[in-house]
Order: sequence, then C-alpha cells, then structure tokens
Amino acid sequence: MAENDNMTQGVIPDELLDLRASIDNLDAAIIQMLAERFKLTRKVGHLKAETTLPPSDPAREARQVERMRRLATEAGLEPEFAEKFLAFVIAEVIRHHEAIAESRAAGS
Amino acid sequence: MAENDNMTQGVIPDELLDLRASIDNLDAAIIQMLAERFKLTRKVGHLKAETTLPPSDPAREARQVERMRRLATEAGLEPEFAEKFLAFVIAEVIRHHEAIAESRAAGS
Repeated sequence: MAENDNMTQGVIPDELLDLRASIDNLDAAIIQMLAERFKLTRKVGHLKAETTLPPSDPAREARQVERMRRLATEAGLEPEFAEKFLAFVIAEVIRHHEAIAESRAAGS
Repeated sequence: MAENDNMTQGVIPDELLDLRASIDNLDAAIIQMLAERFKLTRKVGHLKAETTLPPSDPAREARQVERMRRLATEAGLEPEFAEKFLAFVIAEVIRHHEAIAESRAAGS
C-alpha cells in the first residue's frame, strides 16, 4: 500500500499512512457490523412476513432517529449526520424486505 | 421500550423485541466507529492543509472502493452497498474538509 502511494503521488508522510491504516481498520469493522445488522433486519423481515405485523413501524423509527441523534451528539458527530445515516441504512433494509416479499410471492 | 411498543401497536413478539435490541446495540457501535473515523479524517484534512498534498487522492479512493467491495462480499453483503456506503461517508468527509479550508481562509 505504501509503495503504491509513493508511486502514484510522490512521498506520503508516515503520519498520513498511519491515519489511513486506522481508517481502513475502522471501515472493515463498520462493514462487518453493517453485515450483522442486515442479518438481523432480514430476520425481522421474515418474522413480520410470517405474522400479522405491518412491515413498517413509524413509532419505532421515530425512537430510532431520536436515539441516533443523541448518540451522535455524545460521540461528537452532528445529529443530522446520524439521521442521514439511519435513513441510508433503512432504505437498504426496505429494499431487502421488498425482495423477501417478492420471493415469497413468487414461491406461493 | 417494550412497553411503548406494546402501547403503539398491539403485542410485539419477544423475538422481534430481541432482534430490535441487538440492532440498537449495533447502531450505537457503528455511530461510535463513524465518530472515530471522522476524527481521523479531520486529522488527515489538517495534515493535507499544512502540507503540499492535494485534498483528494483518486488512486487511494479506487483502492478503498475495491477493498470495501471485497470485504462486503466476504461478509455476505452486496458489493454495491459497500460502494454506496463509502461514497456516502466520503461525501461527509469532503464537507468536513471544505469547512476546515473555509475556517483557515477566514482566519488568515
């Protein structure tokens, strides 16, 4: 990685290489936690499809938004970012739930 | 939380409450890791502003995209999602870097 950096744009300071290595570690951890999160929301999707529970729960989502805004503020992030992040993830969850519903409809 | 759920939409199965509690735990962890990631990219922004390094590094970004796609696939996620996620985070990083540059310009 360091050699590539040096080839592509001159000498990269060690401090920058060190920061990038930590960013890469965090990205790997975040992707793995997101994978686990989607595993759980897939289970939620199947559970809701098997029962009479509605696919969306606005009260639950409102609580999630408030909690994420609070957690972001405590962690030194802008609450708006946490809200955008949650919306980004929930959009993906809805895409998964629609795929589950479609595959059930196709199989029935 | 469980009581609220029960009040807002009938009885929520224990299994769903359990899944939601795990999702909430992961969300808290992800937000905290994102906060750490932005701390590091802020340091990168300051380092680049202090040196002659250009603000963006397309070769680095291309490597990050490839790596995130690979990590996503290994974790059972669609590589396209990881790419969208990285683009979402990098857009926020650029916003932070612009704010750093503006505050430096205002102070000079």
